[in-house]
Amino acid sequence: MKVLITGGGGFLGYRLAQELLKKGTLSDADGKQVPITQITLFDVAFPENVDARLKCVKGDLTDAACVEAALGGDTGAVFHLASVVSGGAEADFDLGYRVNLDGTRGLLEACRRQAKPPRFVFTSSVAVFGGELPEVLDDGTTPNPQGSYGAQKVICEYLVTDFSRKGYIDGRSLRLPTISVRPGKPNLAASSFASGIIREPLNGVASVCPVGRDARIWLLSPAKVLAALIHAYELPSSAWGVNRVVNLPGNTAVVGDMIDTLRKIAGDKVADLIEIKPEPRIEALVLSWPARFRNDRALKMGFSADKDVESIIRGYIEDQGIKV
Amino acid sequence: MKVLITGGGGFLGYRLAQELLKKGTLSDADGKQVPITQITLFDVAFPENVDARLKCVKGDLTDAACVEAALGGDTGAVFHLASVVSGGAEADFDLGYRVNLDGTRGLLEACRRQAKPPRFVFTSSVAVFGGELPEVLDDGTTPNPQGSYGAQKVICEYLVTDFSRKGYIDGRSLRLPTISVRPGKPNLAASSFASGIIREPLNGVASVCPVGRDARIWLLSPAKVLAALIHAYELPSSAWGVNRVVNLPGNTAVVGDMIDTLRKIAGDKVADLIEIKPEPRIEALVLSWPARFRNDRALKMGFSADKDVESIIRGYIEDQGIKV
Repeated sequence: MKVLITGGGGFLGYRLAQELLKKGTLSDADGKQVPITQITLFDVAFPENVDARLKCVKGDLTDAACVEAALGGDTGAVFHLASVVSGGAEADFDLGYRVNLDGTRGLLEACRRQAKPPRFVFTSSVAVFGGELPEVLDDGTTPNPQGSYGAQKVICEYLVTDFSRKGYIDGRSLRLPTISVRPGKPNLAASSFASGIIREPLNGVASVCPVGRDARIWLLSPAKVLAALIHAYELPSSAWGVNRVVNLPGNTAVVGDMIDTLRKIAGDKVADLIEIKPEPRIEALVLSWPARFRNDRALKMGFSADKDVESIIRGYIEDQGIKV
Repeated sequence: MKVLITGGGGFLGYRLAQELLKKGTLSDADGKQVPITQITLFDVAFPENVDARLKCVKGDLTDAACVEAALGGDTGAVFHLASVVSGGAEADFDLGYRVNLDGTRGLLEACRRQAKPPRFVFTSSVAVFGGELPEVLDDGTTPNPQGSYGAQKVICEYLVTDFSRKGYIDGRSLRLPTISVRPGKPNLAASSFASGIIREPLNGVASVCPVGRDARIWLLSPAKVLAALIHAYELPSSAWGVNRVVNLPGNTAVVGDMIDTLRKIAGDKVADLIEIKPEPRIEALVLSWPARFRNDRALKMGFSADKDVESIIRGYIEDQGIKV
């Protein structure tokens, strides 16, 4: 079983590769666990000292030949994580569509040209939701994104579903909550602060929070997202049926509560490093996203959330070996 | 005010042009009626003896330069009707995506390059719905198309919405019911029979109905569709808000009842020309479409349906001057 991870040089993609190396096998179409023979990471950049068992292909999603080469014609598992992030897609309309829509479509077309259709896990986002939203969203809520990133994600969900229906892939789309706490550096995602306000203070670095204390976000930890990606892959096709999309479970985090929880865990000196300074452009986008869901379908399919926001923060501290 | 009608050589597009010639004016962005100075029809073919007041541009939606030329850079109103039909898009996956998705996107991009954003009416379809459907659909039902045509339509709805949000167009998407009775010839649309079983027998021609008597379809007459297209255009932007899509009202028609109604109106000799001969490929597609809606939003916005199925059939007979 050959595996391709787009965005494999990024935080999540690389962590996923490490999980798969540990796991060693993946389900084939008949539900039998078969050995993973190769994991290819496709990305524009990679971490230093990549594990030697991983094959790195440097390239851009918009380069069809490069994507096809990375896929190699006999890949059984595709995890498609690469994407221009929300803030970036909103700032550069053309770039967002070129990478997030055309890039995904190119990858799907390359999969279609394979002799055997691969299983295809697509990372969509709760950013597909927006506009006039109910207080609590559920599996029946219709996407109405108020950002180009969300529009591109929902469009690709429909492509994944249609390519699956035609038998060109066996696709599964996960609407990811905001992932926190991500290690590393801030990025252009409008949700970047959801990690930054925990990560930076714990590193003794000041952090500016571009949304008010009352802002609410739908959160999931990296560990739970990785588990969800693998679980989405392992589920048999019949578990998805004619609906290839699922909203992942999460926790509703109020920004002020996150800061207070950090204060409780790590003390005033750490929490005082956070400065609330709303940025209208970011805040508008974040407030347009949903923060509360009923996840009947996902829970029934075996996906799960973190216990609570505190456990998300404590999990990060433990993961990183930070002393508090 | 310059007007562009894609698919302007087709039945609906050409009828729309005739309506606009009669009407003479359209709303500008400020809600003022301004004279229509030019109507351009863009299509691959045109009727004979096109009205001399109409400008015909022969071309293909996939030819970006040709689309741009048809738009002309200063068009105020775009009615985008051109499309590969449902059966065609299902039979030729690549053609469907190239015309219905890429073609629409090219048109939207050409609109974006204009100095002033045009109002843009997009003809989507109830074929966006499918899969596990409630008995009665409403404005909150999430599209889950079970055909590539429906997938392409819902994807374009999201493009129209996103381009509108960015201010590149002022877009409005109408999910059209099956239109019946269309004059002319059968086409590749899986719904073609919904006109054929009325039109052909009334012309003394045999008609094969590829779905069973119990099959139900959501119907709207051409006259009501034309009124809806113009009404959708004339509504101010504020009437649409952050939701640029509406399900048009219609009537639930049971195929057997349509045949019985035709029998009542036109007699046994006409109705006996219909032969029921289910074709699995067509029937599967048609049965995946919804046949009953609650249309609160559309009715509130001023759209309306025909009185009943009988009035649809009688309307056609009257329109065509058929003696029964």
